[in-house]
Amino acid sequence: MRMMTREDCVRLDTSDPLAEYRSQFELPDGVIYLDGNSLGPVTRSARRLINQRLGEWQQDLIASWRRHDWLEYPAKLGAMLAPVLGAKANEITVVDSTSINLFKLAAAVVAQGAESDRDNHRRRIVTEQGNFPTVPYMLEGLARIAHDVQLDVVPRERLLAEVDETTALVVLTHAHYLSAELFDLREMTAAVQARGARILWDLSHSAGVMPLHLSQSRVDYAVGCGYKYLNGGPGAPAYLYVREDLQPTLPAVLSGWLGAADPFAFADVYTPAAGLDRFRCGTPPVLAYAALEGALALYQSLNLSEARAKSQQLSTLLIDLLQPAVSAGTLQLASPQSAVARGGHVSLRYPYAQRLIAELADEGVVGDYRPPDVLRFGLSPLYLRYVDVWDAAQRILQKVRR
Amino acid sequence: MRMMTREDCVRLDTSDPLAEYRSQFELPDGVIYLDGNSLGPVTRSARRLINQRLGEWQQDLIASWRRHDWLEYPAKLGAMLAPVLGAKANEITVVDSTSINLFKLAAAVVAQGAESDRDNHRRRIVTEQGNFPTVPYMLEGLARIAHDVQLDVVPRERLLAEVDETTALVVLTHAHYLSAELFDLREMTAAVQARGARILWDLSHSAGVMPLHLSQSRVDYAVGCGYKYLNGGPGAPAYLYVREDLQPTLPAVLSGWLGAADPFAFADVYTPAAGLDRFRCGTPPVLAYAALEGALALYQSLNLSEARAKSQQLSTLLIDLLQPAVSAGTLQLASPQSAVARGGHVSLRYPYAQRLIAELADEGVVGDYRPPDVLRFGLSPLYLRYVDVWDAAQRILQKVRR
Repeated sequence: MRMMTREDCVRLDTSDPLAEYRSQFELPDGVIYLDGNSLGPVTRSARRLINQRLGEWQQDLIASWRRHDWLEYPAKLGAMLAPVLGAKANEITVVDSTSINLFKLAAAVVAQGAESDRDNHRRRIVTEQGNFPTVPYMLEGLARIAHDVQLDVVPRERLLAEVDETTALVVLTHAHYLSAELFDLREMTAAVQARGARILWDLSHSAGVMPLHLSQSRVDYAVGCGYKYLNGGPGAPAYLYVREDLQPTLPAVLSGWLGAADPFAFADVYTPAAGLDRFRCGTPPVLAYAALEGALALYQSLNLSEARAKSQQLSTLLIDLLQPAVSAGTLQLASPQSAVARGGHVSLRYPYAQRLIAELADEGVVGDYRPPDVLRFGLSPLYLRYVDVWDAAQRILQKVRR
Repeated sequence: MRMMTREDCVRLDTSDPLAEYRSQFELPDGVIYLDGNSLGPVTRSARRLINQRLGEWQQDLIASWRRHDWLEYPAKLGAMLAPVLGAKANEITVVDSTSINLFKLAAAVVAQGAESDRDNHRRRIVTEQGNFPTVPYMLEGLARIAHDVQLDVVPRERLLAEVDETTALVVLTHAHYLSAELFDLREMTAAVQARGARILWDLSHSAGVMPLHLSQSRVDYAVGCGYKYLNGGPGAPAYLYVREDLQPTLPAVLSGWLGAADPFAFADVYTPAAGLDRFRCGTPPVLAYAALEGALALYQSLNLSEARAKSQQLSTLLIDLLQPAVSAGTLQLASPQSAVARGGHVSLRYPYAQRLIAELADEGVVGDYRPPDVLRFGLSPLYLRYVDVWDAAQRILQKVRR
């Protein structure tokens, strides 16, 4: 294969169907941003909506909760996320953080199981070793107060073998935070369900950069964050998905007042709201929602198949351009070679990874270091150009060749 | 006592030592805002800091977490809140919502008790009937997964009688959300502790409007929200207090990755951070923190005894001015007559309360309606003038006399 030239990249940018999206972002001058899988950049619409909400707060004060639909933010952004996740509007709500939402759903399954004659022997939760640790951490906390619940953290290859008639729930991260390796979401969901257990997916590293089909794949539960490929801002509200048919009987364990059927009745005894509203808890942080709302506006017209195609082309381009250093043994690819098996980022191992990432940042190429020796580059298709990847690759090659 | 005139109020405003604070708020024209106990108004410093954080996000992207200390927000705002709550800087952290923080602390006490030889017979949690319901709701959820935990929701007069050798924790709201009636925080804390139980205070309706002395009163645990008298913005991050000597052994049950000792080691097994950092969970919503930071800046120079004195004078003034309607039986005072026993707001009963609040709002006097028949007026000493209370009282009297 002929190596791509910068001119080839310019041509690809010219014919890029997603090229127009770049102008919707406030990108800093002189920076090639390859860390949008950690924190997406500011969208113009986010800044506009933050200022709008500030104006509402200033002018209408307490009345804003109803006059400007602030109270409806969780369901409203859930509906905006629905096409991004391939779910129905009433299957998603936007609330709290990924960690808290993980706990809510795992605790709900545990509580429901304990109260069920059919499932009360299923008290094990299985999750993967070495993936993003908030999953095992939150589940460990749950097992600490729900004494009869057991947590098993096992390597990927042993996952399915661990799912048996004692398993209530399997919790997995779709795209690995380090390697970007993807689970086959539909296949894994079916395999877990065939063993009588439920599955909960963390989609933090895949939502917004590829089409997802939660309803169609019959996924039980999912969570994910709003600040990576979704560009919702630092610490943006997270989302929570529950398949429609599972909603009526799923209890809320973090049963806060805004998850009650009628919060403004101030009753002593909790009656859960219908549907996913019961997974609301405290008062929604309106300014944080505004930033996410602005970002999600971009996804309403986005063709996610085009986004996935461009993301795969960008990550393949980066891998191809770095191939000389990989062949020389200087860099080691830590992501799947096959674009189909890869999420939106590319990881490579390099003994001086931390120093390299710092030096690249000084020259305006922003990637990410993960211990002990991982270079991680996120390739968001919404604001990155092929020439950006070309230029970044040259800088990386220059530095690792020294 | 001679009835106050508007001229008297003007004189009081002229000599008000807190008068200068009003200029720090962006109050809408023509509005007398008596609902700052639900949602405080915008501070100038909040708007400035939100724009500053937006600029950091735009320019420095992922690097902002360390370059601009975003990651340190929970502890930084905890230290800013310390003088407001009468606590040490390391006794407070600002995280998540009041509801979530309530769960964290109650779950921690429950987990710690179960693992202790000394306290494992204490499995009851006691809270008050008819106070703000997120307390019983969240505790109900906890009891649902911690099967051996029992929740008792009892009337105020029976509270202490219910605290015995089976009680682990008493959870109380300091200022009643409806009546504004205060518990004697120091006395109640001592009484609960004398019975061998721990106490957790919800300070949402008292913090920022009166001096508190958590450390000195030997309070065990506390939580509260940032958006009422603290003016931190809609859905502002909440706080959590744990007395210093209780911290080393208190486990985190909502054990998210940012509460780990070294989150960026990405270890499979959770090791809690030292001190209150273990009560962090997910990624902090930076824009929401910015608004609260701006508001808390005002409290660094505030004399809370002066604030309490003015708040009491304002609420007493309102009650005195409405006395003709109370004497006539049209209105009924639903708050303590004694200012010492009262928090920062005044409640009255009126058969057409909902309509009255709507009509007052149309004329720029913003109060609050709570079912079935309660008028609630918050008297924040930081931006309200005595003349505001005088003018508001005249409008109320005009309308209830019709």
